Amino acid sequence: MSLIENLQWRHAVKAYNPSKKVSEKDLNIILEAARLAPTSSGLQPFRVIVVENQELKEKMMAGALNPEVMRDSSHVLVFAAWDSYSNEKIDQVYDYHTDVRELPRGRFGSYTDKIKEMYGAQTPEEHFAHTARQTYIALGFALAQAAELKIDSTPAEGFSNDAVDENLGLKELGLKSVSLLYLGYRDEEKDWLSAMKKVRVPMEEFIIKN
Amino acid sequence: MSLIENLQWRHAVKAYNPSKKVSEKDLNIILEAARLAPTSSGLQPFRVIVVENQELKEKMMAGALNPEVMRDSSHVLVFAAWDSYSNEKIDQVYDYHTDVRELPRGRFGSYTDKIKEMYGAQTPEEHFAHTARQTYIALGFALAQAAELKIDSTPAEGFSNDAVDENLGLKELGLKSVSLLYLGYRDEEKDWLSAMKKVRVPMEEFIIKN
Repeated sequence: MSLIENLQWRHAVKAYNPSKKVSEKDLNIILEAARLAPTSSGLQPFRVIVVENQELKEKMMAGALNPEVMRDSSHVLVFAAWDSYSNEKIDQVYDYHTDVRELPRGRFGSYTDKIKEMYGAQTPEEHFAHTARQTYIALGFALAQAAELKIDSTPAEGFSNDAVDENLGLKELGLKSVSLLYLGYRDEEKDWLSAMKKVRVPMEEFIIKN
Repeated sequence: MSLIENLQWRHAVKAYNPSKKVSEKDLNIILEAARLAPTSSGLQPFRVIVVENQELKEKMMAGALNPEVMRDSSHVLVFAAWDSYSNEKIDQVYDYHTDVRELPRGRFGSYTDKIKEMYGAQTPEEHFAHTARQTYIALGFALAQAAELKIDSTPAEGFSNDAVDENLGLKELGLKSVSLLYLGYRDEEKDWLSAMKKVRVPMEEFIIKN
């Protein structure tokens, strides 16, 4: 199936079959798609936390819009962004880049100096606004990958950031939760959205040609 | 090729061949992938402006980090988000949803009341922070779709929002530019990134298991 067909197939599933689990193999392919996402300056300023443990899921459910969707999903992926940029983090990434590419460290020094200067003039709030945005490209890739594997998914912003951050100890890791991706297999009868037509704004309204 | 192979194939191209154009047919498939992206509450709070006109591209280049990449690309897609949410916009989307699904208007009234209340308590700045995030899922789908078609692309945040917004008249449309996606075919010799190994943080560092 083409990507378009996969994207037409998927929808934000509203009820999962709690007894059907996503395999380790498929989960790893979805995570790999997220890892391959491009990010601003290649910094990959976020991490993905994989939650399968039922007890932990139930703690994270507090304040969620659709707690039972989280509860019955096979896995919850938590997209969590860096709370801020720093010169150290930038150097760490670029030292790794040059090492992998067998280039001398500092090869991209004039570029990293420029981004250090840019982020140095910004507040941590501005940093997080930017790191949070980057996570959505990876969320998109994970959604597309799940669809290719015919694994159901639900992207979610309707949850308590505090409940998730505290239960996963994200603050200590310099991370803040941005979005969740529930993965699993739909409960065909309870997932009311399965029967409904996918609706998107018509193309002639969605695009503006110049 | 699988999605993973397509994502490994792509990179942010740094030099385009200005004489190779993306076909109308391929362009429409990329736009369709973006249109199919999920968004918070299904509101699709953004539009994509397609710029092919060379004169317009050159005006938008002012202040761009890599102006020649924009200039030599075949098309520039501008992802531009709603500057704010409003009850009218929410009603318009949900009236369309119910019409397409042949349901009575107001069928999702308790849900739309809830989101109207939520956004009603927020500032336009908070709205735009949220609408801007949504565009990145669509950017991700467009990147994946271009890769499937073996069309090169470059996602870009390094540009002047003012230069883009003013030249496209976005303010009058209630839109603000968020990111650009350059599309085209690489100039193999000038695209220095083509020869370099793709680098991503190792999987064991990228994910955290719980």
